[in-house]
Amino acid sequence: MRKPYWIWHPGAFELYHSMLLHNRRTSAKTVEVGKEIKRISAYYPPMWRIDCPCHNAELMKRATVDKEEVIELFSNTEDCAIRVDGKKYPKNVKITLAPGEHTVELMGFKAQTFPAFYVTGDVFKSDRTYITYNNNNEPNRHAGWSELYREPEDNVEIFKFSYKRLDPVLIKKENGGILYDFGKEVFGKIVIENARDGEYLLSLGESYEEALDTEYCQICVNALVRNGEFTFVPVALRYIFVPKTDTPLDIFLDFEYLPLESRASFSCDDELVNRMWNVCKYTMLLNSREGFFDGIKRDRWVWSGDAYQSYFVNYYLAFDKEIVKRTIRMLRGAEPMLKHINTISDYTFYWLCSIWDYYFYTGDKDFVCDIYPDMLSVLSFVEGRLSPDGMFERKPDDWVFMDWSTFDPAGPICAEQMVLCKAYDGVSKCAALVGDEKTAVRAEKQRDYIKEKINERYWCEDKGAFVDDYTTGRENVTRHANIFAILFDLTSEERKKKILENVIYNKEITPITTPYFEFYELDAMCRIGDFKYMTDMLHSYWGAMLDLGATTIWEEFDPTKKGIEHYEMYGGKYEKSLCHAWGASPIYLLGKYALGVYPTCAGYTEYEVKPSLMSFGKIEGTVPTPKGNVTVKMDKERVSVQSELEGGVLVLGDKRYRIEKNKELTVNF
Amino acid sequence: MRKPYWIWHPGAFELYHSMLLHNRRTSAKTVEVGKEIKRISAYYPPMWRIDCPCHNAELMKRATVDKEEVIELFSNTEDCAIRVDGKKYPKNVKITLAPGEHTVELMGFKAQTFPAFYVTGDVFKSDRTYITYNNNNEPNRHAGWSELYREPEDNVEIFKFSYKRLDPVLIKKENGGILYDFGKEVFGKIVIENARDGEYLLSLGESYEEALDTEYCQICVNALVRNGEFTFVPVALRYIFVPKTDTPLDIFLDFEYLPLESRASFSCDDELVNRMWNVCKYTMLLNSREGFFDGIKRDRWVWSGDAYQSYFVNYYLAFDKEIVKRTIRMLRGAEPMLKHINTISDYTFYWLCSIWDYYFYTGDKDFVCDIYPDMLSVLSFVEGRLSPDGMFERKPDDWVFMDWSTFDPAGPICAEQMVLCKAYDGVSKCAALVGDEKTAVRAEKQRDYIKEKINERYWCEDKGAFVDDYTTGRENVTRHANIFAILFDLTSEERKKKILENVIYNKEITPITTPYFEFYELDAMCRIGDFKYMTDMLHSYWGAMLDLGATTIWEEFDPTKKGIEHYEMYGGKYEKSLCHAWGASPIYLLGKYALGVYPTCAGYTEYEVKPSLMSFGKIEGTVPTPKGNVTVKMDKERVSVQSELEGGVLVLGDKRYRIEKNKELTVNF
Repeated sequence: MRKPYWIWHPGAFELYHSMLLHNRRTSAKTVEVGKEIKRISAYYPPMWRIDCPCHNAELMKRATVDKEEVIELFSNTEDCAIRVDGKKYPKNVKITLAPGEHTVELMGFKAQTFPAFYVTGDVFKSDRTYITYNNNNEPNRHAGWSELYREPEDNVEIFKFSYKRLDPVLIKKENGGILYDFGKEVFGKIVIENARDGEYLLSLGESYEEALDTEYCQICVNALVRNGEFTFVPVALRYIFVPKTDTPLDIFLDFEYLPLESRASFSCDDELVNRMWNVCKYTMLLNSREGFFDGIKRDRWVWSGDAYQSYFVNYYLAFDKEIVKRTIRMLRGAEPMLKHINTISDYTFYWLCSIWDYYFYTGDKDFVCDIYPDMLSVLSFVEGRLSPDGMFERKPDDWVFMDWSTFDPAGPICAEQMVLCKAYDGVSKCAALVGDEKTAVRAEKQRDYIKEKINERYWCEDKGAFVDDYTTGRENVTRHANIFAILFDLTSEERKKKILENVIYNKEITPITTPYFEFYELDAMCRIGDFKYMTDMLHSYWGAMLDLGATTIWEEFDPTKKGIEHYEMYGGKYEKSLCHAWGASPIYLLGKYALGVYPTCAGYTEYEVKPSLMSFGKIEGTVPTPKGNVTVKMDKERVSVQSELEGGVLVLGDKRYRIEKNKELTVNF
Repeated sequence: MRKPYWIWHPGAFELYHSMLLHNRRTSAKTVEVGKEIKRISAYYPPMWRIDCPCHNAELMKRATVDKEEVIELFSNTEDCAIRVDGKKYPKNVKITLAPGEHTVELMGFKAQTFPAFYVTGDVFKSDRTYITYNNNNEPNRHAGWSELYREPEDNVEIFKFSYKRLDPVLIKKENGGILYDFGKEVFGKIVIENARDGEYLLSLGESYEEALDTEYCQICVNALVRNGEFTFVPVALRYIFVPKTDTPLDIFLDFEYLPLESRASFSCDDELVNRMWNVCKYTMLLNSREGFFDGIKRDRWVWSGDAYQSYFVNYYLAFDKEIVKRTIRMLRGAEPMLKHINTISDYTFYWLCSIWDYYFYTGDKDFVCDIYPDMLSVLSFVEGRLSPDGMFERKPDDWVFMDWSTFDPAGPICAEQMVLCKAYDGVSKCAALVGDEKTAVRAEKQRDYIKEKINERYWCEDKGAFVDDYTTGRENVTRHANIFAILFDLTSEERKKKILENVIYNKEITPITTPYFEFYELDAMCRIGDFKYMTDMLHSYWGAMLDLGATTIWEEFDPTKKGIEHYEMYGGKYEKSLCHAWGASPIYLLGKYALGVYPTCAGYTEYEVKPSLMSFGKIEGTVPTPKGNVTVKMDKERVSVQSELEGGVLVLGDKRYRIEKNKELTVNF
């Protein structure tokens, strides 16, 4: 018999943990207090509304039991009850259900967190089949649940991380103090033991230079050791520097992490690329927590555009459905939607895109059904702000981000219209999936309309490219819209060819500087089969970062910078994140285009393996799917595929070979 | 210098305490647990959505200081900061502001409750002048605050009640146990001291019969005495019965109450009426807490229709603005509004009415400005559900309450349209007050339109009355719509005359059975000058209740019932509330129509005193106003008025006398 789940009002768990995590950031600033100049760590909230979970919940289920069944309610609150066929019982009481139809209602309140329920039993055990029934005119929804909480003694208020002790790999005297080096970027609680009581300054650094710079490091801790001990909240660091001392402390890190099972692998005959793949993997895992974070040092917030890319990397790494669902719910927040997700218009559009992608990789229709009312509400928010002719229009309070790049600042930029168009595509497909034909047809029409208008208005025949803006006459060309035109298939083959020549391969067009947008550029290039563009970039960009000693991928990288210039961003000497999830794209790119594995039907019921050696002599690796792993080996003589699932086809040029489940298929060239 | 206020995101304080109070109800039921039959008190939530406060808050103020000023932030959360001209400081730090313009921002997060701030200083001390600036596209609003929290050591998370020890006035052996009688209805924590350790059954009763009926009493407590002591959460009761014992316990009650200063008084030469006035006052005060409650035993919830009447009684009793504002905010809840207030359509309309009434009695324009965006949102909810011709239309999930009475069940009843019409009147006046001319004009037009349609459709010339429904042909006449027609002045004088004859004075039309609607009937009758109708009712209805030993006014009263039949309601033997706020209307009626004091301009800047002896030989009493008290004495020879405020006129028939401030005015007949 399957175990019950802890259940709650849908979204409550995600909103609760989202609220906590988004309020954990602090930043150290130097301020004058009285006559003293002090370095103070202050609370630093996000600039968007942080929603909170419902503190009341009511869930119910009606079903028939064939044989007598004993059920019992567990809950994290005293203010709760289970009503069986109209009779109310408290928790922790065994209730016998006779064969026949029954109605079970769960109700609870918890002011400080959110109420959750766990019901033992067979038919009536707690799971997604319970639905909300509270009297608030919202659609009736399935209960919220998580694979992480299946035992009656679980505490849903504490996020289930794992912990592991990490000691410094190097302790040495430096600059009149002691430097502790953990060997690579880590995240966890700082613990000091067996120390003399007193106050110690800990200067933390993702880089060696930051740790030693006690005046400008982003996080410095005044560690008050009492009874020989001290513990600090989890932070990201590689180095700890304790100035003005020559006695080493007994310092270690209680490494905190989400125990994701990484089922993927990749190796080739290029050692730099192998090393890079592992650094990308580690970067990704450090940022995979309650949800997908942007960077593990600075924000530790959930940003929709960043997360959208993490989803794709995840489908080629841990294939953890749970974290994708949690992230999508955290980003969505609660009603009413009054502002774009993270305040950024494109981030709202990516959110809409992400749900169909999630379904296409996982085949999890339940989640699409559960989140669909939220999609409609986002769509309604978006449509309430379109221009009279149904296109994106920038409102005074919208942040149109797109990328850290310079766009024509006048009006709605072309790339933004393209993400909106792609969002309509996602909405249309999800609507069709859940049986909302009306919305499906309407969204599809709107998608086609926007595509047509983009081609009509933003294409500049002189430049042979899409321009940022068609109203200013400036005809400013950036890579972004032109990349999307290829990636999202938004224009004719003829125009795509012109784009390659006039934009992508044109060195005069400002190159992409963030790994963020590099993701889309390389994805587009791989899609058209130009793998060299990608493998060159792996060397010149990711490889160059590794050459500088990066143990995780940075937020941004400019090879022309030197020394600590690399760590500067947003006006802070060390404000750049040196462990940023959006740099992990090689995992996705190599899995999808080198190993060549991707679904052609939702949930990998059908899939193709279309491997490519790219610039490598041989490649080997595994791609996870919801139904098992697919392992691909290729060199110049042969390719072999070993798969744990049905429905696969190996594609080599115009030849197609059926892949049998659990039977190695080898094709010699 | 005025003290600072504790401030918070507007509404957070009210939503927080509303959430707690609405989740405190329990009800005792007899259920089978295993092989045992047990009486169990179970959690009992309301049937409407309970909203929670924002757990994040951001408030700011920009101002100029003429001389150096030192400010300091206090907060109930560690996750907070004060940013002065862009520089962030933690709490409990003194910050010096040089003369000149400054910007002070407060930000905070508290997951378990809500963040609150207290800033010392002069210009920048915390008060309503701070405004919200969080990035969520809501209108910028003034900070929330309360007169109750003015000291830095105050805890806004604990509602400021007062406490007083009450001992039983009588302890006697009864039915094989001990009965404790507190002499009248009380509310507080039950405390047992110096007892032998063990479990004691406490059977509580608002009535003697309920306490003795251990099987059916609404609340019974299994008191587990440990170390000689036991304390129970606050409950309402007059009697405690402990069965199967002959040793009295050391039991007392820690009476919990809001320390309202009652500035009003009333006395006359009818002792029953004097007694009744005091019982009404006590009933009202017991139900005046975080907000105005319906009844102190059973729900202890805030209901909009009930509260609407409590506001009027309050204007003639304690004149506490704070509790009215708190109640209005609690009822409103948070966005999005998806269902009527308390799920009842008329209760939403009364909410809209209540704000203009509040302004008219108090003159507090600030509050109208603060709540106005919420009014607009309620209006938009209401208008989104009107029929195509702009009238009220019952939706499947609407509870159209109006009164515990039998109406034509077919469609929207006439009385409902009339409250909607009155609501438009209130909206129109508030809109004009805050300078929203467009809404003012539109709402006024809509009010006139509905009034016209009511007279066109619901008036039945045959019956000489308004009928419940005009579509069924049943021509059912109830008192309710006809009372409103008079009270809200919704029809011609000619039709009003017909209503009096055919409905009000017609004994064949079912009489009103609840003190709730009796409020409106008597208000209407007083308005047309038929005071006898009211004083007769005071005797036959309120007087009869007192004759049965009531120490507070009951939820409902039917003189034809006998014994414990009086306590039965909603299918429970003792479920009726014996202390229900809506019975306190005589305080309002006698203050407004006997003492005759009422504002003619908002906030009593102008007012009239139009006293009437009614059926009494003499009357004497005081009515509170925002600017001081007005005391009126009248007998058959003379009337005298002593007032602490300007702007008064004594009206006697068609004669008018100016009332000078603080100078007794006496007129002999």
